[in-house]
Amino acid sequence: MSADPTLRREIPDATVARLPEYLRTLTMLAEAGVASVSSEELAASVGVRSAQLRKDLSHLGSYGVRGVGYEVETLALEITRALGLTQDWPVAIVGMGNLGHALASYSGFVTKGFHIVALFDDDPALIGEQVGDVTIRPSWDIEGCARELGIAIGVIATPAPAAQTVCDALVKSGVHAILNFAPSVLTVPAGVEVRRVDLSTELQILAFHAQRRVGLPSPAVVQR
Amino acid sequence: MSADPTLRREIPDATVARLPEYLRTLTMLAEAGVASVSSEELAASVGVRSAQLRKDLSHLGSYGVRGVGYEVETLALEITRALGLTQDWPVAIVGMGNLGHALASYSGFVTKGFHIVALFDDDPALIGEQVGDVTIRPSWDIEGCARELGIAIGVIATPAPAAQTVCDALVKSGVHAILNFAPSVLTVPAGVEVRRVDLSTELQILAFHAQRRVGLPSPAVVQR
Repeated sequence: MSADPTLRREIPDATVARLPEYLRTLTMLAEAGVASVSSEELAASVGVRSAQLRKDLSHLGSYGVRGVGYEVETLALEITRALGLTQDWPVAIVGMGNLGHALASYSGFVTKGFHIVALFDDDPALIGEQVGDVTIRPSWDIEGCARELGIAIGVIATPAPAAQTVCDALVKSGVHAILNFAPSVLTVPAGVEVRRVDLSTELQILAFHAQRRVGLPSPAVVQR
Repeated sequence: MSADPTLRREIPDATVARLPEYLRTLTMLAEAGVASVSSEELAASVGVRSAQLRKDLSHLGSYGVRGVGYEVETLALEITRALGLTQDWPVAIVGMGNLGHALASYSGFVTKGFHIVALFDDDPALIGEQVGDVTIRPSWDIEGCARELGIAIGVIATPAPAAQTVCDALVKSGVHAILNFAPSVLTVPAGVEVRRVDLSTELQILAFHAQRRVGLPSPAVVQR
């Protein structure tokens, strides 16, 4: 029943955030020819308790079989469908500095149903440059182009002061999903989803673990 | 009691991951001159329930005052101390393509106690290039340099095939905290903390929200 949009709307945000992690493990298992996986194994690969995993997957209507676990390919398909990855999502990147260029060539973006169809910058030195098979367009053309190209997801990689203006132009063009790398909070209408990537958060979490190490016993080699 | 390392080791990983989010809100509030914040307000800013927030902060020994909430500056200092951000963390970036360059100039890295002290690449065309006030060194010098410079955190921004070799060199040099942007799983000794940033996860979560929008009523303007 995971294709029922009414049901899908009920999946909690925290569960949605874990689904790509489960899918990553399942994809690796499928590529390795593994047919089934226990809830304990799948949960461990993502770092959650198996009770949490079972609860998450119950939102998709997937319950597994006691003593057998989950069928890898079936579950991967169910998650793919629940996330909406069975269709193609046209993506635009705005801000083609180093980060924009890095994102445009990031292999994770071009697989898994995402297709970069437009790049924008307001620097005349960058406009017209070819990146892969996409030409950088002027930022002031966002409103016209984004609607025409059917952009579903906008990625903002501009400096902070430009981010709100760019966001407004994307929203006016009908973009309802925005990934914000600029270190600024965006104001959007209801119904527009913004996710912010703050790389310094990751460093802060690492700093916690680095300081915690003081006084630990000397390390033994493990896989992870 | 948050400065007690024994206590600190008991903080659950999920709580540690939320502390930088609380700290970001608290920093903004402090800059705006706000003296205290309720657990409901602080929880809402991060998107967790207030019961969760109170439980998270109880791990730091912070309990707030009924009807008043938390003192902004005191709590910010407690989280800063718990995360280990009261000291300076020397950071090295390996892989100076577009992503490495973007990270080297990312403003979030140079504030908040992180200091980029070394950059590495194995491309002769990049070695010797000056980025800010740091010169790109050859990757084969990681083992010598990283220990000498006291690198605490290594950021891997290389292509996937090079990531494990780079990781091994960093670990041999005494680096125990690694932020991995390469789309590959790393094998490390026990005691080494690896965090992986997978940007396609964010896009997958946005795809879920984009498809979910179909059939929603037309948006009303809100702040968030």
